[in-house]
Amino acid sequence: MRLAFFGDVVGKSGRDGLAAHLPGLRKRLKLDFVVVNAENAAGGFGITERTAAELFDAGADVLTLGNHAWDQAEALTYIEREPRLLRPVNYPEGAAPGRGASLYALPDGRQVLVMNVLLRLFMQPLEDPFAAVDRQLAACPLGQAADAVIVDMHGEATSEKMALGHYCDGRASLVVGTHTHVPTADAMILNEGTAYMTDAGMCGDYDSVIGMDKAEPISRFVTHMRGGRFTPASGEATVSGVFIETDSRTGLALRCEPVRAGGRLSAALPAV
Amino acid sequence: MRLAFFGDVVGKSGRDGLAAHLPGLRKRLKLDFVVVNAENAAGGFGITERTAAELFDAGADVLTLGNHAWDQAEALTYIEREPRLLRPVNYPEGAAPGRGASLYALPDGRQVLVMNVLLRLFMQPLEDPFAAVDRQLAACPLGQAADAVIVDMHGEATSEKMALGHYCDGRASLVVGTHTHVPTADAMILNEGTAYMTDAGMCGDYDSVIGMDKAEPISRFVTHMRGGRFTPASGEATVSGVFIETDSRTGLALRCEPVRAGGRLSAALPAV
Amino acid sequence: MRLAFFGDVVGKSGRDGLAAHLPGLRKRLKLDFVVVNAENAAGGFGITERTAAELFDAGADVLTLGNHAWDQAEALTYIEREPRLLRPVNYPEGAAPGRGASLYALPDGRQVLVMNVLLRLFMQPLEDPFAAVDRQLAACPLGQAADAVIVDMHGEATSEKMALGHYCDGRASLVVGTHTHVPTADAMILNEGTAYMTDAGMCGDYDSVIGMDKAEPISRFVTHMRGGRFTPASGEATVSGVFIETDSRTGLALRCEPVRAGGRLSAALPAV
Amino acid sequence: MRLAFFGDVVGKSGRDGLAAHLPGLRKRLKLDFVVVNAENAAGGFGITERTAAELFDAGADVLTLGNHAWDQAEALTYIEREPRLLRPVNYPEGAAPGRGASLYALPDGRQVLVMNVLLRLFMQPLEDPFAAVDRQLAACPLGQAADAVIVDMHGEATSEKMALGHYCDGRASLVVGTHTHVPTADAMILNEGTAYMTDAGMCGDYDSVIGMDKAEPISRFVTHMRGGRFTPASGEATVSGVFIETDSRTGLALRCEPVRAGGRLSAALPAV
Ligand SMILES: [Fe+2]
Ligand SMILES: [Fe+2]
Ligand SMILES: [Fe+2]
Ligand SMILES: [Fe+2]
Ligand SMILES: [Fe+2]
Ligand SMILES: [Fe+2]
Ligand SMILES: [Fe+2]
Ligand SMILES: [Fe+2]
Repeated sequence: MRLAFFGDVVGKSGRDGLAAHLPGLRKRLKLDFVVVNAENAAGGFGITERTAAELFDAGADVLTLGNHAWDQAEALTYIEREPRLLRPVNYPEGAAPGRGASLYALPDGRQVLVMNVLLRLFMQPLEDPFAAVDRQLAACPLGQAADAVIVDMHGEATSEKMALGHYCDGRASLVVGTHTHVPTADAMILNEGTAYMTDAGMCGDYDSVIGMDKAEPISRFVTHMRGGRFTPASGEATVSGVFIETDSRTGLALRCEPVRAGGRLSAALPAV
Repeated sequence: MRLAFFGDVVGKSGRDGLAAHLPGLRKRLKLDFVVVNAENAAGGFGITERTAAELFDAGADVLTLGNHAWDQAEALTYIEREPRLLRPVNYPEGAAPGRGASLYALPDGRQVLVMNVLLRLFMQPLEDPFAAVDRQLAACPLGQAADAVIVDMHGEATSEKMALGHYCDGRASLVVGTHTHVPTADAMILNEGTAYMTDAGMCGDYDSVIGMDKAEPISRFVTHMRGGRFTPASGEATVSGVFIETDSRTGLALRCEPVRAGGRLSAALPAV
Repeated sequence: MRLAFFGDVVGKSGRDGLAAHLPGLRKRLKLDFVVVNAENAAGGFGITERTAAELFDAGADVLTLGNHAWDQAEALTYIEREPRLLRPVNYPEGAAPGRGASLYALPDGRQVLVMNVLLRLFMQPLEDPFAAVDRQLAACPLGQAADAVIVDMHGEATSEKMALGHYCDGRASLVVGTHTHVPTADAMILNEGTAYMTDAGMCGDYDSVIGMDKAEPISRFVTHMRGGRFTPASGEATVSGVFIETDSRTGLALRCEPVRAGGRLSAALPAV
Repeated sequence: MRLAFFGDVVGKSGRDGLAAHLPGLRKRLKLDFVVVNAENAAGGFGITERTAAELFDAGADVLTLGNHAWDQAEALTYIEREPRLLRPVNYPEGAAPGRGASLYALPDGRQVLVMNVLLRLFMQPLEDPFAAVDRQLAACPLGQAADAVIVDMHGEATSEKMALGHYCDGRASLVVGTHTHVPTADAMILNEGTAYMTDAGMCGDYDSVIGMDKAEPISRFVTHMRGGRFTPASGEATVSGVFIETDSRTGLALRCEPVRAGGRLSAALPAV
């Protein structure tokens, strides 16, 4: 199977970038399934039905979220009727609407398990992400119940991300990080066959501070005073993510390579 | 001028990797000057005179440190007699031995200003890194007192790093992050000519948790109990960093590209 | 001199409590000067000219702030024309309006130095609070330029507060903490004569979560979801603070005792 | 029933203070049961069999721990054979030796449930403390399976402590905080009958920085450099805690008052 995952879409720049590049990438890379982290799709904060629609139209099969999941209040009800939208799986039982993991069927019947999990180092203490992921992987084993398994680990610290990657090794097709908004250059296949990348990077304007117009964040670091609101930078986006190809029998990864198109960052396009 | 910067050297694997690759890279890339972050050179924690010597022998001109600067007590005295070793510049006046910024002369007389600064988000609150860097840049202006300026920003959060990068834009040749031990794929030249990369990555074994043997860190995340010590992973290192070429007149960047060699990560070698 | 300091006034309950109790306490304790932390006076978040007026009317001579200083935008301009309002002294030079320390004259000419400082452990990294307080104390020495010196240290961690208390010992009349909204039972006079109390407690309804209506904060801890806004609890306030009497010659403390009146907590009233 | 709880015993000063005061307090207050937090009993860091013995000899019935539980390696095995020692209850299943909650029988057959729980704000993210406490309270209901229930919540933030207090209201005899090493002056009985105090304070020398000799902690705050080890202050301890009397039928609190004896802090002794 050929899958791609794209990191945090930030505002209109990110949505437009995805609309511009994803259709071509789907075709060129013969993608079977595409997951996009959309926690910053709506004006940089959260998601709305309208902004989600743009991402589905662009070719996303499933959208994941993160610590910004509920920044837009409508997401609380929208997620209840949109099975293709996932919030972090490790909320306490009954605390959050929607779901954090789900199995999706391809037209040809193959099944992809996708989950979104919030890490804890320097973040909100949801339930243990290691235990939560463990339960999902056990309930729907790769190569048996699922033809592919994608784990979006939304977190700050590289140590926690690398630890969770190895923890899932051999049990997921891809474990990829989101949240830092900067792509890492460590796409690799771990010892037991799981593709791994510490952060997918964002789909947004990199002439910015993590996708936001530079002036206000710099001013806050310098003065510790709020001068105004954070607004997404509006320059051309780099669409940033990772491509994997899986073994059809085991669901493990055969290839794991970065994908970047447009905007400021150097382009990266897997060979076909 | 042609310069390279390599991220946190972790333990013997990192030192051996640097010894294996740096001499060839210096020659092939015709490097005039090389800076290496060495805060994890000695068994993963801090630096000693002996491990520093290995890095100088491999071809490092200057070594920088970070939050692990003093993990080995001998560094407190060693740094006083080794001008090529820099600790974070933003300790309170008089608090730390050694220096955090220095001007280095090349054999041909050209001058390179190097500084190491500790960021604050999710870290120890040293003095304001923005103000500290500002003072250094003002005291030794690029293109006038310095032919090149390299800022090693040692920090956790991508937002603070991108903000500091833009804050220095036009006043430094290179602003590069360290500390996360994972290379980012965002090497670029900012609007006013400063080369920027959020993190240089580590020189160490990437089949690990940020350079450390996997078992203990994973166990701590899962159990929150200490099972043993952290020890550096001993597999082959990837040497990871960034290469820049500067305009000889302005000191600003003409090129900014990743460098990776050896080990698990995909290789990256600037064209000559 | 006889002085009192009251901790964070929270919303209408806190303002009403102060209006009910402070006039009587001023008289009974023959207070020469009263300082009140008012960072939560306006609906629990920040301060306005109108809520400040209530506190001045109740008998406050000076109001201090904290991390909530600017929650109400009007405070940014109000503080410029109200010399009796102090924000944290350790903002970077030029970053914040108003002032963080000031010398106030009593009708009889005696001078009281008051300062407000934001600590850093588990908080925003403003400039070094130890250095900032040191500068103020040096510029206006107790027993020489000031007849009394009051330091309001706004912070989370008891370790940082106790350390700053001892750091100021002999140079201030009173070092008292704010921010936790819970009074500590450690009022004492340190070795060199400075009165000290880790936290003054809040002026607010203690049948609450730090002054806020209980339901929403408990729900957030349990679900990690936002269910609504935080609103101040509306039950009767306990007015909580500390009373000191200073030596007229040295400005150091002769007495240091808690003051509590009204509401849920046990009353405490210094003998006269 | 008449119970007392004493906060973090720090080093020899704390142990000696408890030995000097607890026997008299047990007699004078006719205490049926005494719980002592002992996470800093051994040289300020953790507990050993020998230091625990001193506390049992002084009159403690049960010892609780906290984030310093395992600072002394022998605690890992000692706790397995000492049922009167409790570590935080919210470690992941199977991760830690010993137990976090237990039911203790008085000579007359009455049963006391004691538990120790680690909070999460500004601390290590163990399992959800609200859910963990909830499970214990449900498994052993007050007034039915237990004649008294004591919850030692080991945490930093007053908000989380007050929220947990209210969360347990009506289901525990006493919810009392530890960890900050400073007693709070908010002993009260909540609306449904649970006695509450944000922090019991420490049993240790208050002429210190949270029980430690002052010089090193102050120097670390000022310089951000390590100058030496932390060692417990050796002056006379104040023994600090809380006394409650429960209704023999419901197990809820009839009285809740501070207890302090010795050392620097003002004494507090419940009337008999
Ligand atoms: Fe995020
Ligand atoms: Fe994001
Ligand atoms: Fe570091
Ligand atoms: Fe490092
Ligand atoms: Fe505050
Ligand atoms: Fe406050
Ligand atoms: Fe503790
Ligand atoms: Fe403690």
